[in-house]
Amino acid sequence: MQVFNEFVNVFNAHSDTILSGVADSDVKDAMRYALEAGGKRLRPYLVFAMSSQTLQNENMLNLAYALEMVHTYSLVHDDLPAMDNDDYRRGQLTTHKRFDEATAILAGDALLTQAFYVISTLALNHEDLVRAIHILSTSSGANGMILGQVLDIQNDTKHTNQIEDLYRLYEYKTGCLFSAALRLGNLLNQKHENEAQLDQIGKKLGIVFQIQDDYLERTSTFDVIGKSNQSDLDNHKKTVIEFLGIDATKLKINELYAELNRDIMLLNETYPLLMDIVHWMKDRIK
Amino acid sequence: MQVFNEFVNVFNAHSDTILSGVADSDVKDAMRYALEAGGKRLRPYLVFAMSSQTLQNENMLNLAYALEMVHTYSLVHDDLPAMDNDDYRRGQLTTHKRFDEATAILAGDALLTQAFYVISTLALNHEDLVRAIHILSTSSGANGMILGQVLDIQNDTKHTNQIEDLYRLYEYKTGCLFSAALRLGNLLNQKHENEAQLDQIGKKLGIVFQIQDDYLERTSTFDVIGKSNQSDLDNHKKTVIEFLGIDATKLKINELYAELNRDIMLLNETYPLLMDIVHWMKDRIK
Repeated sequence: MQVFNEFVNVFNAHSDTILSGVADSDVKDAMRYALEAGGKRLRPYLVFAMSSQTLQNENMLNLAYALEMVHTYSLVHDDLPAMDNDDYRRGQLTTHKRFDEATAILAGDALLTQAFYVISTLALNHEDLVRAIHILSTSSGANGMILGQVLDIQNDTKHTNQIEDLYRLYEYKTGCLFSAALRLGNLLNQKHENEAQLDQIGKKLGIVFQIQDDYLERTSTFDVIGKSNQSDLDNHKKTVIEFLGIDATKLKINELYAELNRDIMLLNETYPLLMDIVHWMKDRIK
Repeated sequence: MQVFNEFVNVFNAHSDTILSGVADSDVKDAMRYALEAGGKRLRPYLVFAMSSQTLQNENMLNLAYALEMVHTYSLVHDDLPAMDNDDYRRGQLTTHKRFDEATAILAGDALLTQAFYVISTLALNHEDLVRAIHILSTSSGANGMILGQVLDIQNDTKHTNQIEDLYRLYEYKTGCLFSAALRLGNLLNQKHENEAQLDQIGKKLGIVFQIQDDYLERTSTFDVIGKSNQSDLDNHKKTVIEFLGIDATKLKINELYAELNRDIMLLNETYPLLMDIVHWMKDRIK
């Protein structure tokens, strides 16, 4: 996926621009640390893949960063001792371990706030900017990603009785931001059609992505996924493996990707980069 | 101040409307708990006071709530053990003591996100909505309120050598949201003049408000300010009292309010409700 690699290089180099207006402080350092910790950059790439913009398009990069800032803040807060209590993320110290808890809390808050600021400065018509704020706030708030975090916490305490509970958790925790990525990318191209279908595709992609994480956490080592695969086990979280076993989980992953393939083909336009990245995601498990 | 009391009643009754679209969860309960914990409602009242709208105006109430949600999230996170570690706020248990730390972190995140969502739904023209997002995100982010929190944390560790450092802390920590309140209220009235003056008035009001807090914390009891007056002393925070002593602090407060009186009179319109609330704020100290 050469275009994905090229995008990641351009995207990563854009962090200076994104942070250039932020006053120097420990919180800014922590924002930068969290943003530059790497990660696959899947969500911003999905924005790009949907947007029909060039790799260097400033507007696209800024909007993609806004979404990545929301994702990053959620990781910084999720790693805190009161939440998942993770010391490592993507193979390096989590933000609160590298700085301290107070700075990590504030850096998360600042990343979330800055995401909305960045959108307010985009070179789009005002109606589309308001639409972008609406998409980002609904997909990441208490009816979206944060609801997913709540379900995740309850998953610790054994509220997850059926596999559907887990799919719902994954839909909110991960699917909502994937949905936002597709819809924001579409919006950047000043297209407003396919909203409902893109929402469904994004959510399904989030679900299968999390199922793959369950699969990889049980079958891989630290090197592959960049964090301890003991974390979920230690926290007594239920995963799809407990419900389906390893073989049926792999079948489920293949089934969902086949559905996604069909869903994308049924859209009334072709999105070749979206199709490619979905195939690339499927290939995380051979 | 009968109109202030009337506003607070109408405002408090509006919380159901604000939370009506939020999915039921522990986080929603915590959002409601934090929002309904009371407080003076000064920031939303400043929005109303500037707006020339009726007490029942939905648009005004929603915008005022958006600002109060940002203020409330900052208190929820500020009270956390890793930050100020306060058990009581406004005379009742802080959110993380009433619920737990994870829920309080997420409720704060959700309140911040919901503030931007609420703005995206206001019945204003799209240009003014984007302006409102811009005002709220800049005043509350890493160049505004959050920078104030950073300075506040550094104040713990004795970085505050001059009284100007403390004024700067207060300007960011409290003044920025007061400035946002005035500018958002003005915007609601579809006025775009006086931006710079209102920004300065809001910041000065924030500084004097915090100086009054220092004064009251040193001279009052739990009943008056609703939180332990030992908190800042226990945390080894510097206050204006250490620099000026009690008597000169009171003089400084009077001096700043006299300046504010003049600044408001110099605006090219009259704002009687703003003048009244500033006098009421001054009267916190007789």
